[in-house]
Amino acid sequence: MQAARIVKLNEPLQIQDLQTPTPRGSQILIKIQSVGVCHSDVHVWEGYYEGIDGQQLKTTDRGVKYPLTPGHEIAGVVDSLGEESEGFNKNDKVLVYPWIGDGVCPACRMGEENLCDKPRSLGVYVDGGYAEYILVPSYRYLVKIGNDMDTDTTAPLSCAGLTAYGAVKNAQLKPDDNVVIVGTGGLGLMAIQLVKAVTGANMIAIDLDDQKLDVAKKNGANITINSKREDPIKAIAELTDKLGADAVIDFVNASKTVETDMHLLRRRARLVLVGLFGGELKLSLVTMPTRAYRLIGSYTGTLTDLIELVSLAERGVIKPVVSNRFKLDQATEALTMLKDGKILGRGIINP
Amino acid sequence: MQAARIVKLNEPLQIQDLQTPTPRGSQILIKIQSVGVCHSDVHVWEGYYEGIDGQQLKTTDRGVKYPLTPGHEIAGVVDSLGEESEGFNKNDKVLVYPWIGDGVCPACRMGEENLCDKPRSLGVYVDGGYAEYILVPSYRYLVKIGNDMDTDTTAPLSCAGLTAYGAVKNAQLKPDDNVVIVGTGGLGLMAIQLVKAVTGANMIAIDLDDQKLDVAKKNGANITINSKREDPIKAIAELTDKLGADAVIDFVNASKTVETDMHLLRRRARLVLVGLFGGELKLSLVTMPTRAYRLIGSYTGTLTDLIELVSLAERGVIKPVVSNRFKLDQATEALTMLKDGKILGRGIINP
Amino acid sequence: MQAARIVKLNEPLQIQDLQTPTPRGSQILIKIQSVGVCHSDVHVWEGYYEGIDGQQLKTTDRGVKYPLTPGHEIAGVVDSLGEESEGFNKNDKVLVYPWIGDGVCPACRMGEENLCDKPRSLGVYVDGGYAEYILVPSYRYLVKIGNDMDTDTTAPLSCAGLTAYGAVKNAQLKPDDNVVIVGTGGLGLMAIQLVKAVTGANMIAIDLDDQKLDVAKKNGANITINSKREDPIKAIAELTDKLGADAVIDFVNASKTVETDMHLLRRRARLVLVGLFGGELKLSLVTMPTRAYRLIGSYTGTLTDLIELVSLAERGVIKPVVSNRFKLDQATEALTMLKDGKILGRGIINP
Amino acid sequence: MQAARIVKLNEPLQIQDLQTPTPRGSQILIKIQSVGVCHSDVHVWEGYYEGIDGQQLKTTDRGVKYPLTPGHEIAGVVDSLGEESEGFNKNDKVLVYPWIGDGVCPACRMGEENLCDKPRSLGVYVDGGYAEYILVPSYRYLVKIGNDMDTDTTAPLSCAGLTAYGAVKNAQLKPDDNVVIVGTGGLGLMAIQLVKAVTGANMIAIDLDDQKLDVAKKNGANITINSKREDPIKAIAELTDKLGADAVIDFVNASKTVETDMHLLRRRARLVLVGLFGGELKLSLVTMPTRAYRLIGSYTGTLTDLIELVSLAERGVIKPVVSNRFKLDQATEALTMLKDGKILGRGIINP
Repeated sequence: MQAARIVKLNEPLQIQDLQTPTPRGSQILIKIQSVGVCHSDVHVWEGYYEGIDGQQLKTTDRGVKYPLTPGHEIAGVVDSLGEESEGFNKNDKVLVYPWIGDGVCPACRMGEENLCDKPRSLGVYVDGGYAEYILVPSYRYLVKIGNDMDTDTTAPLSCAGLTAYGAVKNAQLKPDDNVVIVGTGGLGLMAIQLVKAVTGANMIAIDLDDQKLDVAKKNGANITINSKREDPIKAIAELTDKLGADAVIDFVNASKTVETDMHLLRRRARLVLVGLFGGELKLSLVTMPTRAYRLIGSYTGTLTDLIELVSLAERGVIKPVVSNRFKLDQATEALTMLKDGKILGRGIINP
Repeated sequence: MQAARIVKLNEPLQIQDLQTPTPRGSQILIKIQSVGVCHSDVHVWEGYYEGIDGQQLKTTDRGVKYPLTPGHEIAGVVDSLGEESEGFNKNDKVLVYPWIGDGVCPACRMGEENLCDKPRSLGVYVDGGYAEYILVPSYRYLVKIGNDMDTDTTAPLSCAGLTAYGAVKNAQLKPDDNVVIVGTGGLGLMAIQLVKAVTGANMIAIDLDDQKLDVAKKNGANITINSKREDPIKAIAELTDKLGADAVIDFVNASKTVETDMHLLRRRARLVLVGLFGGELKLSLVTMPTRAYRLIGSYTGTLTDLIELVSLAERGVIKPVVSNRFKLDQATEALTMLKDGKILGRGIINP
Repeated sequence: MQAARIVKLNEPLQIQDLQTPTPRGSQILIKIQSVGVCHSDVHVWEGYYEGIDGQQLKTTDRGVKYPLTPGHEIAGVVDSLGEESEGFNKNDKVLVYPWIGDGVCPACRMGEENLCDKPRSLGVYVDGGYAEYILVPSYRYLVKIGNDMDTDTTAPLSCAGLTAYGAVKNAQLKPDDNVVIVGTGGLGLMAIQLVKAVTGANMIAIDLDDQKLDVAKKNGANITINSKREDPIKAIAELTDKLGADAVIDFVNASKTVETDMHLLRRRARLVLVGLFGGELKLSLVTMPTRAYRLIGSYTGTLTDLIELVSLAERGVIKPVVSNRFKLDQATEALTMLKDGKILGRGIINP
Repeated sequence: MQAARIVKLNEPLQIQDLQTPTPRGSQILIKIQSVGVCHSDVHVWEGYYEGIDGQQLKTTDRGVKYPLTPGHEIAGVVDSLGEESEGFNKNDKVLVYPWIGDGVCPACRMGEENLCDKPRSLGVYVDGGYAEYILVPSYRYLVKIGNDMDTDTTAPLSCAGLTAYGAVKNAQLKPDDNVVIVGTGGLGLMAIQLVKAVTGANMIAIDLDDQKLDVAKKNGANITINSKREDPIKAIAELTDKLGADAVIDFVNASKTVETDMHLLRRRARLVLVGLFGGELKLSLVTMPTRAYRLIGSYTGTLTDLIELVSLAERGVIKPVVSNRFKLDQATEALTMLKDGKILGRGIINP
């Protein structure tokens, strides 16, 4: 089978011809129809994240090994099944849950495999979906999707959708809360749809781009703030009777945005940090108890969350937006466009 | 009535003769028998907390006004009642819940008055318990205690006990969790008793003082680490198979302790910040989502929490330790001794 | 002031001229503009509920005393304030939270006054809103509403809305749950709007009346079943792959509906019992653990819930429907029409 | 391998010589050292539970098939491993989680396999542990135990311990709650230890047997009531200021006990039904909402619960009591003694 692989950091991906795996035991082989191109693929390609004091956190220090086939937003059909696999048949249309753990740590045992101590996520720690086939270690990681669902719009649910959903859940919103969404790109937009679908909270979206903010409004944001033109700290103060927002979800999570976030918070507020932009925050320690703040790092979501998302998507309650489509040999082009901010919505590779 | 009041910051408290208030409506007047001397009284006396970049956060900026009668850990008997008050009679023995809010903000409405947007806490924003009497704004803020309960050991439940309990609840412990208690002074010791009483978790206590660690062990800590002699980061790594602790509760909350805390955390861990020592932390932003950390500022507790504590104390499940007793005119001495670390356990003023 | 009072059970209400109260302490006097006519007013008028073995549970055994001014869904403006009241001014437009407790029982302390051990609910245990004025025991029980909000459509939030909301919360719905709403009258319809607004669950509405089911569909029900024409047990089995529904909310709660409900439940399902129709259920005890069922009695809601509801109504996310308006001297007519099933939506008295 | 099997209902178990299975894929073969003899084994042997109207609910209607090797409380050592299994090695000492599901239903996906729609529990739906070996379908269902832990006292954790723990969790106890434990046999006793270990609640134990009540007291019950001599309804009323208990956990769950339970409940109380004795309850429907009761069927527990239990047992916080030991060919004797009430504590078979 063909796969687009990162062999050297920052260099064009190589199309390699690999042995198509044969599923054993509870494994299932999926013929990939759609794989999303995600910002974290860019990080894996570049090989680092921004740390503190200008230092880089290397992906290899987090356990990533190269050469690697990236790609973790994977939808396709069941090709063949190990003899112990259950609940699925050949040609079933499926979405893959890629945040796989070792299955025996406390996180895995309670259904939070995405937070496993020894993760084996597809496309990050083991070969992923920029390929014609993927071997999924167990039928347990598959979610059946309706035959009338488009794999292109379904694939992004397993990361963009799931990360947005996990963040919204971590914000613990009530209908009388004011929640601020920082960043209205793919994830932020998905979060806006989800806040509207399952919380009833009042939403304020912040971005630098009027066009994105327009889309945010159409998808459910009650109020939008262009932080290029308007000081968000002042704007939120006015909107909240000088009290601040009950929750802020930051899909950028860079020094600059989080420093601002800290001034948007009401007493008891939750600040959910999602983006992987990185950098540092100088945190005033005494303020944490006196203001009873909660800073919550939010990373993808659980398999249960994904099943909930698929249910919402099947009924049209949420609608992921796909903007660009690529072939497998255009993987480098896809990553480059994403890095350069030229993909609005989601890019999909159809292997 | 006599009251010991802060008139000028850092200067000796003045004993003043004030008009004894008359309760109206739902108010109740309490004859004070015991009032605890708390570290936050020292902050109110000094007039500041440590902020970031070496700056001081002034108590006046937080809304504190002087002259002020400090003291928020108050136990005594009902002296007289407003005509609308209910559920209490003259001479009832009571503990006062001092973390009073405006009663109409969302926090107050859901029973989290301690996190009110416009707090009126006794001894902080309005006159407190270093006095012969205190006017409590409503019978709702009183908790009846058994006639055989000692007001000296009961008084500290309303801050030392409550703060420890709130922190333990915020740590969301399960029986198979490893929890690290940083600081085994009055609050830390109370937290150790509470972790044992209501969670079943495995406890590791860290301090610089062997004597305190001995007491910690007798009160329920499974393992103790003297961080003067032993590197806590290495010790916790060994105890947890290199994974880190599931939760850390820091009763110091200074730059130095929190920097260490960050290296003790397992993926998914909760770091509960309680102490008011202050200072700053340089936080790596990308680590928050990738490690799924939660930094939780914890401030006192709710009235419901206090009722639970009183229930535990009445049955002897927890036992606050009182070590020093003072008269009202020794208030300055009590604060000075506490500031200088010369009170082990809790100091109590008997007005 | 004028009030319509139940003097003898089942006889026409008497219009009496009562002394207009003067607020003291934290009390507030409200000039009533709208008061809802609720099914539980009919029970209070009739003096009983259906118990088991054909016996009647008398309202007097529950602590109701006559003569009584009924009416608990009350909206109006602040007329005058006690000297200790806070947060409100004369002429403020307000909704009254009527589910008042003694303020010192554990339920009250944690913000669940609606479940107080010694309730003092307005219009049930003390005089209510079928009157020109009502004395509210504390400013804490008022919720400010926008000047552009209609008191007629706002009043029903405090019982019809709140009861529906409490029931929806008790059902603990997730987006991939199938929830069955039994009864699509006023409460059921409100529940349908709320399930849609805050849960994302898939909704199936059951009723005997096609017209009501049409309205249910327009308000968010995904599927409707007329149980006159279609066997709901068979229909739900088909819709759920023979597994049953994840939750059933029964707004009738009569023997006949609940016997059917028990056959609609999936393993782990919640059955939320709301209506006051009454009667008995013969429950198979061994089935409770083996099927892990939960039977949850749901009674009104908390003050916090009401604030959330008002927030949703202010933004138009939910829309209570008022169908009939009456004058104070038409109170008997209003109750009779409701009893006879002649009010679709909500009847309101404008005193 | 040898196995003691139910071939005909109520007749002596047959010792059969079966093929020892070979583990494939993620399967693991366990050499059994200890298997608990549980009351539900008696039900499986008898073939029915008590239903309503004197009818029997047949185990075959619940999906049980005969011949069957019973036994679900299984501890032993790893004998051999499938090639895909992980995290375990030959000779590891392990406890088996027997409440296995299909792995793809919503309950399984969220870690509640014990409540799977299509259960495959060991010793109930597939062959269990009255045998020399058992084939566990995946390494995921094993919990490693310390080498110094006794398999005889560890085995009962997976049902007696887990069922008690699940019930205690379902009762949602707070330290100021009064909880009533009905039945102080093996499960009740374990529940008493667990309530003490993780909740801090005030405990009242009810039984007919003074000796058992003595043991209950030694294990943490604060108050005991012998319902042969004392009316529990009157006793609980006196103990709770006529309000009733906050929670009742019924380990018998027969008509007679549950009818009494209903009179012990405070408003807002939880009644947790655990035992499989069965029969019926005539439930007053209107009382459910007006008193806000919750009837909760509780069935075993999750894998996560089991890991928590093992952690508590390893540190000696809880101590299961084993009273009788049998050989495999004494299985019939063991079941008969249990049925006749002649086993106090737990009976264990050592194959």
